[in-house]
Amino acid sequence: MSQGAMREWFPTLGLVALLCCLSLGPVDGGKVLVVPMDGSHWLSMKILVKELARRGHDVLVLVPESSLLIRESDSFKTEVYPVQYTKAEMDGSFRELSDGVFLKPPDITDMFVNVQRFVDFTTLQLKGCESLLNNQQLMSQLREKGFDMVLTDPFLPCGSILARVFSIPSVYFLRGLPCQLDLRANRCPIPASYIPSAFSGNTNVMTFPQRVKNMLMSVMDLYMCKVLFGHYDEMVSRYFGEDMTYMDLISHGAIWLLRYDFVYEWPRPIMPNMVFIGGINCANSAPLPADLAEFVEGSGDDGFIVFTLGSMVSKMPAEKAQQFVEAFRQIPQRVLWRYTGVPLVDVPKNVKLMKWLPQNDLLAHPKAKLFITHGGTHGIYEGMCNAVPMLMFPLFGDQGDNVHHMVSRGVAEELSIHYMTTDKLLAALKNIIQDKSYKERSVALSEIHLDRPLQPLEQAVFWTEFVMRHKGAAHLRVAAHDLNWIQYHSLDVIGFLIAILVIVMWVTLKSCLFCTRLICRKGLRKTKSE
Amino acid sequence: MSQGAMREWFPTLGLVALLCCLSLGPVDGGKVLVVPMDGSHWLSMKILVKELARRGHDVLVLVPESSLLIRESDSFKTEVYPVQYTKAEMDGSFRELSDGVFLKPPDITDMFVNVQRFVDFTTLQLKGCESLLNNQQLMSQLREKGFDMVLTDPFLPCGSILARVFSIPSVYFLRGLPCQLDLRANRCPIPASYIPSAFSGNTNVMTFPQRVKNMLMSVMDLYMCKVLFGHYDEMVSRYFGEDMTYMDLISHGAIWLLRYDFVYEWPRPIMPNMVFIGGINCANSAPLPADLAEFVEGSGDDGFIVFTLGSMVSKMPAEKAQQFVEAFRQIPQRVLWRYTGVPLVDVPKNVKLMKWLPQNDLLAHPKAKLFITHGGTHGIYEGMCNAVPMLMFPLFGDQGDNVHHMVSRGVAEELSIHYMTTDKLLAALKNIIQDKSYKERSVALSEIHLDRPLQPLEQAVFWTEFVMRHKGAAHLRVAAHDLNWIQYHSLDVIGFLIAILVIVMWVTLKSCLFCTRLICRKGLRKTKSE
Repeated sequence: MSQGAMREWFPTLGLVALLCCLSLGPVDGGKVLVVPMDGSHWLSMKILVKELARRGHDVLVLVPESSLLIRESDSFKTEVYPVQYTKAEMDGSFRELSDGVFLKPPDITDMFVNVQRFVDFTTLQLKGCESLLNNQQLMSQLREKGFDMVLTDPFLPCGSILARVFSIPSVYFLRGLPCQLDLRANRCPIPASYIPSAFSGNTNVMTFPQRVKNMLMSVMDLYMCKVLFGHYDEMVSRYFGEDMTYMDLISHGAIWLLRYDFVYEWPRPIMPNMVFIGGINCANSAPLPADLAEFVEGSGDDGFIVFTLGSMVSKMPAEKAQQFVEAFRQIPQRVLWRYTGVPLVDVPKNVKLMKWLPQNDLLAHPKAKLFITHGGTHGIYEGMCNAVPMLMFPLFGDQGDNVHHMVSRGVAEELSIHYMTTDKLLAALKNIIQDKSYKERSVALSEIHLDRPLQPLEQAVFWTEFVMRHKGAAHLRVAAHDLNWIQYHSLDVIGFLIAILVIVMWVTLKSCLFCTRLICRKGLRKTKSE
Repeated sequence: MSQGAMREWFPTLGLVALLCCLSLGPVDGGKVLVVPMDGSHWLSMKILVKELARRGHDVLVLVPESSLLIRESDSFKTEVYPVQYTKAEMDGSFRELSDGVFLKPPDITDMFVNVQRFVDFTTLQLKGCESLLNNQQLMSQLREKGFDMVLTDPFLPCGSILARVFSIPSVYFLRGLPCQLDLRANRCPIPASYIPSAFSGNTNVMTFPQRVKNMLMSVMDLYMCKVLFGHYDEMVSRYFGEDMTYMDLISHGAIWLLRYDFVYEWPRPIMPNMVFIGGINCANSAPLPADLAEFVEGSGDDGFIVFTLGSMVSKMPAEKAQQFVEAFRQIPQRVLWRYTGVPLVDVPKNVKLMKWLPQNDLLAHPKAKLFITHGGTHGIYEGMCNAVPMLMFPLFGDQGDNVHHMVSRGVAEELSIHYMTTDKLLAALKNIIQDKSYKERSVALSEIHLDRPLQPLEQAVFWTEFVMRHKGAAHLRVAAHDLNWIQYHSLDVIGFLIAILVIVMWVTLKSCLFCTRLICRKGLRKTKSE
């Protein structure tokens, strides 16, 4: 099939998606209780929530009164509930996650730092969750509404606890949980021989030493799960009895809507109830505001660069920012930079500083030449959808691993925010923009990523409604959920078979020895009698 | 969401499928070489082949001159190639598979009988394959045509050998291979703790003794693979070097189109390149011919029964057939029976014997009350699509396992063709028809089976064209393919870590002993000197 045919296919696919959308139309409304996770997680879940509401479902989003990005909306109903912490504490908690990133270069102890950050961060959120669960009046109101299902992000336990309390199925929306708890809960095999552990720096192709490291880290992950989710386990066992862990609780999720795409993720074993919606956040791009449109159109053939370090990091130390300014001064491209830090001196004309920028809309512009990003998955998918090469500065959490994915696919380069200099930055910028192979590989990756039979939002809507229609997705639930760890790995069976084997060998050996002795004695008697 | 809404959903989905079909429309044609497997396997593959041709692809089907069901067609091009066996030998080979089934009841040795039947059956087919591969003139012609891909059923090796010879990607179309070779080749995990082995009689929920049996049988499966596919391995190594086995060869399949649906199959781990098209054979039903329509419409409220034992078995011993006749005489339902055996005496008026019957079209009729079947997967999916309860007589091959799936879901009963009597048959017929729960469960199963975002044919077409557009589906191929068995299971890593642990413990122990001795000696000398 010709490349031309392939290009023709994309608009056709768009048409299909549109037709699907129109023809599926709103159906008789179900009742959906949405328990979101704040921050960037909410930004992509909101796309599904809005679409469910548009399709006539009765959608109610639970919003803690101190929240970062979750707001009331005309598109769906919200229920604000009081929490024991203030907006300032909440902002501070989010800021703590990001503030440390400029303090010191990453080192081996970072894993422990990350663990502590995760525990601190989620401890506050769990307080909010407790406030909701102990709010008897609100809980009664919610129960009375007779929801059909819960849509939630299992990064926090509140949604899955509510689903169990109300005895309704849940649909999870996420990219993944620390220590791969999502995969473990869903009984999805994780072969350590070709699935790299988080923070290992490995890809899916490993040398022997890398596989040894990977094995050790995947064993350590089991311990990490206990540490990371210890306070979740404690909360869950308080509500549902001592035997239940958080992993047990979320193992009941009917459908896992995962922001995955194997153009980006390492291909791996999956489970039937995992639905892949990677790129859901970059399906639609809107026209740019007039001032931005003018700025980027004016960039001519040199094009422009989009520079943002995610929803949580828009400041940096002045001297670090100044290094960026000096590099940008020496390139012909224009730069749109999300920056809210201390005022910078002598910012050149080709640089536009902004408090917030329409990242996906900018990346969708044909003059976008480069995306400078921290390597959050939302940004990566937006870069990938729009085939824009990337220069990546991983800051914390899973970003180091994310960056590794893109660099190994030849569509990005990585720089350390700590060891960066103006010269290094300049060299990287020039290299990625001038070496056409980055763009070519980005286009190839993008074409495969966009070539799918159903759009991610359509998949997400279908399976959410499926769960409402059938009160779950029991036919996709593996029987492994009813086995404990020993049974699942057949260790009891193997032990039993080895025991049988040993007994048989022992009995055989003893019998042989007995017979040999018997024969020897007989021989001895015969000799004596002779 | 109301049940009403659910029912409304089905026509909507149909509309979506239609719109998708229309909007995807024919695209620039690719060149597809089709290497089918004869018999019932071809009947479902033909649906995809016809659709690919309809969409403007240049489709060429390779047909051995002695074939059972593969015919020339107006819908696609065919290339007939000479083979070293006659049509009679071919028919005989198929007949051998089925003839033995009425001879004796199944017993423990059946597994070995099945193995021998498989080897005998495929040995003849492999001869045909050799004829094709050694046909230099035809091979040159095929090479010159510059095919984009091979569509084949890996039940036979010919298609995947051609794909490798021509260096083009392949798409596989199948339900599964004996000893789960398809899953092993695709590096799909098969946990013995909840995935029942073939012929084990287990479901996905097993007691400890059942798990022991399952583990033993899954280990034996490894040996079975060697026996069943030994002649495939020999052929492959002859063409591509001694190191290559048949499993290695088919591990290069880009996409596995699997006639699976987890309403029917036990839910299990899967791989990203497995696409599920279970039910592709029952998507469309045609109106019945006038005589059949009159017969079934005349059945009144009692309805009718469809009775067929698959494409390969339409005869049976006269006395066995007479037992069926006697039972049918005593029920009010009409019966459509595919039967080509010796003429039967005194066939009642409610029974219509036919040489061939439009199984899916009959099952789709609202008066269809029961489906008497041997438990082939094609028939099962047609029964399931149309929510018709089943009475099942497993005959050979995977049919015993297939029947187990349906019986455990409460939509079928099983009878042995050997131990059946007229009374037993009559009791089973009355029970399934009169006990409404069979129908209710069939409807529930059918609703879930039919509730899917894309029709199986659409899935199959999309992924076949995807492979043509992108010259394979490399992004879905797991890195496990580059690991040997020891590496895949990390046995080398585990061995290495155990060795390190032992060495560390040994050195520590030796050091401790050395120190202890040193201290003792010093103490001794001190005592002596004192």
